[in-house]
Amino acid sequence: MDVKKAIDEKIEQMREEIIEFTSNLIKFPSEQGKEKNAQLFFADSLKKLGCQVDIFNPDAETLRKYEDLMITREDFCKSPDVVGLLKGTGGGKSIILNSHMDVVPAGDQDWKESPWSGKIENGKIFGRGTSDMKGGAAANFYALKAIIEAGIKLKGDVIVESVVDEETGGAGTAAALLRGYTAEAAIISEPTDMKVYPACMGSMWFRIKVKGKAAHGATAYMGVNAIEKAQIIYNALKKLEGVRKETKNHSLYSHLEIPFCINIGKFSGGNWPSSVPDEAVMEGRMGVSPDESISEARKELEDAVRDAAASDSWISKNPPKIEWFGSCWVGGAVSKDHPIVQNIVRNHFDVLRREPVVSGAPWATDAGVLIRYGNIPTVIYGPGIGSTAHQANEYILIEDVIKATKVISNSILDWCLYQN
Amino acid sequence: MDVKKAIDEKIEQMREEIIEFTSNLIKFPSEQGKEKNAQLFFADSLKKLGCQVDIFNPDAETLRKYEDLMITREDFCKSPDVVGLLKGTGGGKSIILNSHMDVVPAGDQDWKESPWSGKIENGKIFGRGTSDMKGGAAANFYALKAIIEAGIKLKGDVIVESVVDEETGGAGTAAALLRGYTAEAAIISEPTDMKVYPACMGSMWFRIKVKGKAAHGATAYMGVNAIEKAQIIYNALKKLEGVRKETKNHSLYSHLEIPFCINIGKFSGGNWPSSVPDEAVMEGRMGVSPDESISEARKELEDAVRDAAASDSWISKNPPKIEWFGSCWVGGAVSKDHPIVQNIVRNHFDVLRREPVVSGAPWATDAGVLIRYGNIPTVIYGPGIGSTAHQANEYILIEDVIKATKVISNSILDWCLYQN
Repeated sequence: MDVKKAIDEKIEQMREEIIEFTSNLIKFPSEQGKEKNAQLFFADSLKKLGCQVDIFNPDAETLRKYEDLMITREDFCKSPDVVGLLKGTGGGKSIILNSHMDVVPAGDQDWKESPWSGKIENGKIFGRGTSDMKGGAAANFYALKAIIEAGIKLKGDVIVESVVDEETGGAGTAAALLRGYTAEAAIISEPTDMKVYPACMGSMWFRIKVKGKAAHGATAYMGVNAIEKAQIIYNALKKLEGVRKETKNHSLYSHLEIPFCINIGKFSGGNWPSSVPDEAVMEGRMGVSPDESISEARKELEDAVRDAAASDSWISKNPPKIEWFGSCWVGGAVSKDHPIVQNIVRNHFDVLRREPVVSGAPWATDAGVLIRYGNIPTVIYGPGIGSTAHQANEYILIEDVIKATKVISNSILDWCLYQN
Repeated sequence: MDVKKAIDEKIEQMREEIIEFTSNLIKFPSEQGKEKNAQLFFADSLKKLGCQVDIFNPDAETLRKYEDLMITREDFCKSPDVVGLLKGTGGGKSIILNSHMDVVPAGDQDWKESPWSGKIENGKIFGRGTSDMKGGAAANFYALKAIIEAGIKLKGDVIVESVVDEETGGAGTAAALLRGYTAEAAIISEPTDMKVYPACMGSMWFRIKVKGKAAHGATAYMGVNAIEKAQIIYNALKKLEGVRKETKNHSLYSHLEIPFCINIGKFSGGNWPSSVPDEAVMEGRMGVSPDESISEARKELEDAVRDAAASDSWISKNPPKIEWFGSCWVGGAVSKDHPIVQNIVRNHFDVLRREPVVSGAPWATDAGVLIRYGNIPTVIYGPGIGSTAHQANEYILIEDVIKATKVISNSILDWCLYQN
């Protein structure tokens, strides 16, 4: 415990440096396709720490071997992954500390300061990506730096991954897997608000096109209104949601009324009040259990639409078209009793003097990629407030960054072990 | 009957002239707001015929006295009405021959020739407005010209109206009423395909906004999906349509499965697959019985929406907003036994040697304006194919124009009477 005390003190000594590092990361406007400069800065910091640093661009073509991985672009030339490896002395377990450098667009929202200000005020750091997730990246980095500066030799390897493309599906983390980086556990320091998430759900978008038959509105009965027929499909999806509520229960999601919702977020049909619409299009999101594969979930929805179609003579002759488009995040989970989870829980208690909430993440992260494609037990835990992410005036509490750094650093010690 | 024979022969002699006149009208691209040149050409033709000609611009402000009349623009400076008056010698009944010069936009549709070509080929004249309704305007004009050229002196007055703004609701015909033009009957030579329509239905557009409550799609149950709530309103409107099918039956519309449809032609809700939409908007058209006022019909729809809202706890607290926008055509009808109707029926039989179809018009025309606001018994009858109107490659059959000219000319003789 003296070693952990030394680590905590070291982190307190570096408090101003951690704040400045986080603020500096914010000053890079690392929206997707523009991550390079921020990544090179991170890589340079890892080099100074004594890590072996690997900088490489994801390759869309080879990433396609991962079934259901969402790849939304072909060109990663300005979006390198950065991996820093600190080899252990042997005899300990290896760990990945994962964060992503891409941020969602700042947008033309109502920002009080520039989204790239990195302004420090009242115990907060402001800017796009503070919570999601440059604060987490800083926590990972300083968790390792504190150990090194304290002169502690770890037995297991530490792999620090700063990836790209998390916000649209995980190509960056998958590319690091493809590159050969693996470990006996992983921590993703996403903004869980210091909750411990051993699971994240999957989700995906769908589009359903329902046909009608055009007619003039004065003799509307001569047509078939696609809006009306789409309602049949809508109702079938809500029924499926109810069935899945019973069949896809997951212990880490029991706190949610409906863990894996099916939401219709967009509906459009027709373009003229006095014409009968010959097409209606619904777009929505389907939540996927961490224990369920994307293809299993897709089949359930497709079957439900097919069954609903069979109940209606028009739709059965004009079957709806289902497209899986835009977004698809794979989910994944480990047991909450897994040692890496219990490691975080224990160190959280030691640092914060209270039990953390342990549950499933309410959103997708790269944990699904690491667990499903990499077979790496992964826990999501980090500083930052999920509700401020993706919003104007995003911020992070400095105190959370410091505490998360301590929890992660102590967890590394427990996991990788160290030489006395 | 010798007089009618003389008229028919005169019209046959003028066949080439009638074709050329119609084709020349097509060469004016008289879309709304651009009717002036076509109208001045028509006015000039009426002057040459010996009519007193009145050219005047509708005035949006004074037209507002007509309740429920749709006025979609403030500026009529390039859209004059033209009225030609041929005074009778006295002792006969007066008649209005009404047509409109505005045409719907040519659009960027797949026209084989220019929409303004007026091309004559294979017994047809082609171009925007041939059927709707410059062919009818030519029939009105030559019906009167044939009488004048045959040297016949009519006892009743003939008022030839070439109006603007029919396609968006009737401001032009209403302006002629306001100007003082009235008669004991009216013929509107819209493209009925030589059917006799003593009635036209009304119709109007509505927009209904249904509120929801936004939420993230992952926890969709925390929101209220406006698309789903809008379905309740949709179903209430279809139920109302069913009720009206029973209660608003009209003898001239008994051939239609549902005479006065309620059609939802446009539905849009939400803009993101993984968000719960907080608003859904439906736009539609409500058919109105010729015997029903616009305000009566509106009240029925508003009551139905209110009753549906009461059945749902969310909607009752967040009542849908109903807007009556865009289009509103008043309907109107005369008995099919009315003398002006029987006059047309008889002369149609004499010219074509077959009974005409007599029914209610499947669309709105200015007949509603003449009947409701002007109290003028009106029948709709003319050459041209309704199904080709508003489409690319619109055309009219020359033979129909000639026959309609004969029917209308003979009907004038029977109605206005003439000096032997």
